[in-house]
Amino acid sequence: MTAPLLESYAAGRWYAAPDEGTPIADAVTGETVARVSSTGLDVAAMLHHARTVGGPALRELTFHQRAGLLKQLGLRLVAGKDAFHALSRRTGATDADSAVDVDGGFGTLLSYASRARRELPDDTTVLDGPVEPLGRGGTFLGQHLYTPLRGVAVQVNAFNFPVWGFLEKLAPAFLAGVPTIVKPASQTAYLTEAVVREVVGSGLLPEGSVQLLAGSPAGLLDGLSGQDLVSFTGSAATARKLRSHPAVVAGSVRFNAEADSLNCSVLGPDAGPGTPEFDLFVDQLVTEMTVKAGQRCTAIRRALVPRHLVDDMVGATRERLADVVVGAPGAEGVTMGALASLDQREEVLRSVKALRGVAELVAGDPEHFAVVGADRDRGAFLPPLLLRCDDPAAAEPHDVEAFGPVSTVLPYEVTGAGGAAQAVELAARGQGSLVGSVVTHDREFARDFVLGAAHAHGRVLVLDRDDAGESTGHGSPLPVLVHGGPGRAGGGEELGGIRGVLHHMQRTAVQASPDVLTAVGGRWVRGAERHDDGVHPFRKSLAELRIGDSVTAGPRAVTLEDIEHFAEFTGDTFYAHMDERAAAANPLFGGRVAHGYLIVSWAAGLFVDPDPGPVLANYGVDDLRFLTPVKPGEELTVTLTCKQITPRGGADHGEVRWDAVVVDTDGRPVATYDVLTMVARTWPPASGS
Amino acid sequence: MTAPLLESYAAGRWYAAPDEGTPIADAVTGETVARVSSTGLDVAAMLHHARTVGGPALRELTFHQRAGLLKQLGLRLVAGKDAFHALSRRTGATDADSAVDVDGGFGTLLSYASRARRELPDDTTVLDGPVEPLGRGGTFLGQHLYTPLRGVAVQVNAFNFPVWGFLEKLAPAFLAGVPTIVKPASQTAYLTEAVVREVVGSGLLPEGSVQLLAGSPAGLLDGLSGQDLVSFTGSAATARKLRSHPAVVAGSVRFNAEADSLNCSVLGPDAGPGTPEFDLFVDQLVTEMTVKAGQRCTAIRRALVPRHLVDDMVGATRERLADVVVGAPGAEGVTMGALASLDQREEVLRSVKALRGVAELVAGDPEHFAVVGADRDRGAFLPPLLLRCDDPAAAEPHDVEAFGPVSTVLPYEVTGAGGAAQAVELAARGQGSLVGSVVTHDREFARDFVLGAAHAHGRVLVLDRDDAGESTGHGSPLPVLVHGGPGRAGGGEELGGIRGVLHHMQRTAVQASPDVLTAVGGRWVRGAERHDDGVHPFRKSLAELRIGDSVTAGPRAVTLEDIEHFAEFTGDTFYAHMDERAAAANPLFGGRVAHGYLIVSWAAGLFVDPDPGPVLANYGVDDLRFLTPVKPGEELTVTLTCKQITPRGGADHGEVRWDAVVVDTDGRPVATYDVLTMVARTWPPASGS
Repeated sequence: MTAPLLESYAAGRWYAAPDEGTPIADAVTGETVARVSSTGLDVAAMLHHARTVGGPALRELTFHQRAGLLKQLGLRLVAGKDAFHALSRRTGATDADSAVDVDGGFGTLLSYASRARRELPDDTTVLDGPVEPLGRGGTFLGQHLYTPLRGVAVQVNAFNFPVWGFLEKLAPAFLAGVPTIVKPASQTAYLTEAVVREVVGSGLLPEGSVQLLAGSPAGLLDGLSGQDLVSFTGSAATARKLRSHPAVVAGSVRFNAEADSLNCSVLGPDAGPGTPEFDLFVDQLVTEMTVKAGQRCTAIRRALVPRHLVDDMVGATRERLADVVVGAPGAEGVTMGALASLDQREEVLRSVKALRGVAELVAGDPEHFAVVGADRDRGAFLPPLLLRCDDPAAAEPHDVEAFGPVSTVLPYEVTGAGGAAQAVELAARGQGSLVGSVVTHDREFARDFVLGAAHAHGRVLVLDRDDAGESTGHGSPLPVLVHGGPGRAGGGEELGGIRGVLHHMQRTAVQASPDVLTAVGGRWVRGAERHDDGVHPFRKSLAELRIGDSVTAGPRAVTLEDIEHFAEFTGDTFYAHMDERAAAANPLFGGRVAHGYLIVSWAAGLFVDPDPGPVLANYGVDDLRFLTPVKPGEELTVTLTCKQITPRGGADHGEVRWDAVVVDTDGRPVATYDVLTMVARTWPPASGS
Repeated sequence: MTAPLLESYAAGRWYAAPDEGTPIADAVTGETVARVSSTGLDVAAMLHHARTVGGPALRELTFHQRAGLLKQLGLRLVAGKDAFHALSRRTGATDADSAVDVDGGFGTLLSYASRARRELPDDTTVLDGPVEPLGRGGTFLGQHLYTPLRGVAVQVNAFNFPVWGFLEKLAPAFLAGVPTIVKPASQTAYLTEAVVREVVGSGLLPEGSVQLLAGSPAGLLDGLSGQDLVSFTGSAATARKLRSHPAVVAGSVRFNAEADSLNCSVLGPDAGPGTPEFDLFVDQLVTEMTVKAGQRCTAIRRALVPRHLVDDMVGATRERLADVVVGAPGAEGVTMGALASLDQREEVLRSVKALRGVAELVAGDPEHFAVVGADRDRGAFLPPLLLRCDDPAAAEPHDVEAFGPVSTVLPYEVTGAGGAAQAVELAARGQGSLVGSVVTHDREFARDFVLGAAHAHGRVLVLDRDDAGESTGHGSPLPVLVHGGPGRAGGGEELGGIRGVLHHMQRTAVQASPDVLTAVGGRWVRGAERHDDGVHPFRKSLAELRIGDSVTAGPRAVTLEDIEHFAEFTGDTFYAHMDERAAAANPLFGGRVAHGYLIVSWAAGLFVDPDPGPVLANYGVDDLRFLTPVKPGEELTVTLTCKQITPRGGADHGEVRWDAVVVDTDGRPVATYDVLTMVARTWPPASGS
């Protein structure tokens, strides 16, 4: 039987190349799993389709609508995950490995969906930072605003995470409103193709928002221009090539890379044998060497250990590595699978050879090891290989990435005030890493290492007995944290929650009058028109309320008796309210003043509308500032203005943010804040809700 | 007399090349102003000096200390500005032009100094975003953190802003803690050199934080690596060359470019003759064509005008341009100076020739025009040149940047719902611009244009009768707003207030326990240790207070009488507090509840320490959320914990942020918020303060 030819999903249809294609081998058995070819594929049409069909369709949707689709997609993929796990074994992955790739990928969709609904507005743009006054009169203001790029997000992925690598890039692009073209690495493209088939088959995502390019991407980058993005994961050499592609350079195409990374993990000087941290360090190292057979960009390549602890640490690790069972995923007892391909194994062995020029192999033997449930010579198997280099100044351990179950132990001297100086220096010799970790229960050492080494890392983990129970581990990027590293690691940044969405959007500074800025940003800006139509805005449901709807209430005079009464009732007898002489000596008050909480309590008393109505609750207050002390005799007036309206998908209520300003007799602002309320979608509520 | 040879300031000394150098001509007279050469300059030593001397010295300082130095420097430069203005005339700049370049540059230093003191902590790192819970138990958290890159910020500047271009890049880099090497364009390098001499002579900045490379930068980029940055302003061709330099590519060096930009200004369909907006449009166009003789990256190259208004608009502009007096800066009546060089003039004329293939010259004649106070043939003079192209689909007006006093008028059709569709489309044909503007008093048109065109712009200005009095104009980047644009404009982003500082820092996700995160970030994190040493933390001055110092107070029972009393006193008789039946029907409460403001007022009554002490005032509250309704009978307990301590340079008080949690009888949080206080540096206060 001929292995199936992978198809590309291009411009709304599945495309099969007319030729035989290149065979892809099963990592375990060497059999041909599939063939791949993009011969004859019209890549320019794919770009055109994304720009003219996918982009416009996506931009019709709000963030919450896109999030809703991602959630549905994630749930559907989770429901069908068994089939993907089965296919994933053919890439050499154990079920535990597939949990990282397959389940991790689906989980990333769900995490992004949930975050977008919580943190992004139900709108198509994102406001960035506060309104900037650009003149003294308040007629000219600035506001930064994010809008979606009008191009295509091109993913060029690595072979090691055929599912997660695709979905962790898709989720933020999709949420931003930018269509995606996925180019998987050929070695494992059949798994990506299977997931894309499910995505397309679901019919959930707008046509054109996801396309698949199976095979060579020749010509694809030639068509890129200034609104496009490239997100690359893979080798530094390929990153260099793509980054300096003429179209990428000419169009200032946003180029994000995750490339080689000589990540380190540091054992603290306090963490000798017998401490929980010693065991955590060894456990973590063994995990990172064996998960995905060490084929993770985030794996620990350098274990930095205080010189006096090296022997113990190597001994303990060797013992633990002896328990690792290499073999066919799914076979009885197997804890580590195969590398992705025989080529990959050759590549790793070449790197190990280079490392052995300066380091001694202290655990594992690439020539002699057992394989369970598979033919050792046909599958891409390797045992975990631990090296030890006693000269931390040697170049190779900091330069050569053996992309497999390989790690090198290096000693460091405990020097400097907190002892972390040399560990920091060695960490930075990786010239930029995706992640570094430090395992210590010494808070000062942890602090010194993190602040010293952060500049060279996209992520730093501090592991100790306190967080080990919940730690997600050195090697795991999380949807809510940035993933990427400077320098050799590619200089990129992905994920990080909403940060990853914004990477796909253009930040623009808008300069305008308050009224125009209100119209553009959808958020009422101080200085813009207020509307008072005689109906208290608390009588209006979400359906009736408009930004700028306003009510002014007061004045109400504050007396000394009021202040004393409030002090007595609340117990807040601070001298500034109670003792004229002491209050007069306070540089900020110069005499007795009303409590700030009295002012906001009274303001609520002035603006509240007592009867049941669409405003269900005041659930919070933001940015409350007391600007001018209120002395007895002042009269307070409050103005409340509808600032922002956030409906919540199908919910029967949404959030309304109100601008509140309390002024004194002379009209000076004494307090400004935002009042946050829950407001019913309709009033009276629709029956049954 | 031989013109002086410009020197480089390299590795702590002024370096004069041993050769004659290349002469630089006065833009007005053609005389040689100076000579420039970098022959023999050791650029590798400059990089080394920045990394090993400048960077470490800068990183010893806090943001506030760096801001203090920038402020002093700015004031010193302002005091000596007359000399720079005099030299600036030789670049062809009128005094009004120098106000933009020289005064604008100094103002940028002062703006950044002030912003950094207000918005950055008195610390060396910046926390980004909230703490992210990474597990349910609260023992494992994430926090994003910015630390300074450990490399060099290399500026490669354009000839048109020899002062501003240098200082607008220096200010954010310096504040971030990153040393700078300045490479000015040779044509106007003598003015940059003069300012650098003053900077160095002031002795204010740490040695190594600023170096000057006068002449060719050959070899400089070869030495760059992953912690370095390049900020380039100039032509797209040079941007391409630098961006694809092997060292820049290999090291993932952060590369920021501001390049060619075919900026547009759109006249709204409402803005016919007789409207204020019509006059504003013409005024602005004339200003942008003549300031710096049109040599601004942000100048208006394309005037997009409703087809029916083109004749009127061209007529009015032609009239205004007739008043422009070209000549020697400083000569009687001169309103527009020379281009920077004869080469530049040739370049502009070549571009005008290309434009004239599709456009008609409707104002100005490059062959016949008057020059006041200078020899027309020796200086780089040109008159303002207005072109008109009746075919908006022609390629040249959207592609050819004539970098001088040149603009092209293009018609657009008023189509689509709001009428802005074609204007948006033509704006985007610039393929990415630094700035676009729209002059209209039609709010819907303004909104449609801004949201439609934002993706292609770094900045968008809406000009109308309401903001014109305070508007800073189409062409002026501001320190607090981002400057840069996608695609052809270089894909970069500078300035934008603190955003510009963060571009020079590495963002790192730190994962740790609450205690470690508190130690690393310098901000108390929920779940971390609290210290209660028996002394109320409000009795502690800034000198005594420690992060984590805490007090717990209560319990205090809430009765129905308390709620009714509070309602009566404040006037807040909302039904949820007063009407059991109505409150029971509210989906969020299910019965009468205490006012949120009662809860926080009582909490203050519980934790306040009444006697005069170091806590001078509660000036605000942030992030107040009411989490659980409080029913009569519940007892409230509050815990206040010192979260963040911000001393203010030499001031006798600083800011302290407290974490407040109010819990009910069952320990459920009912309200969480941050309390903001002013606290004395010492207590009792030092005499005389």
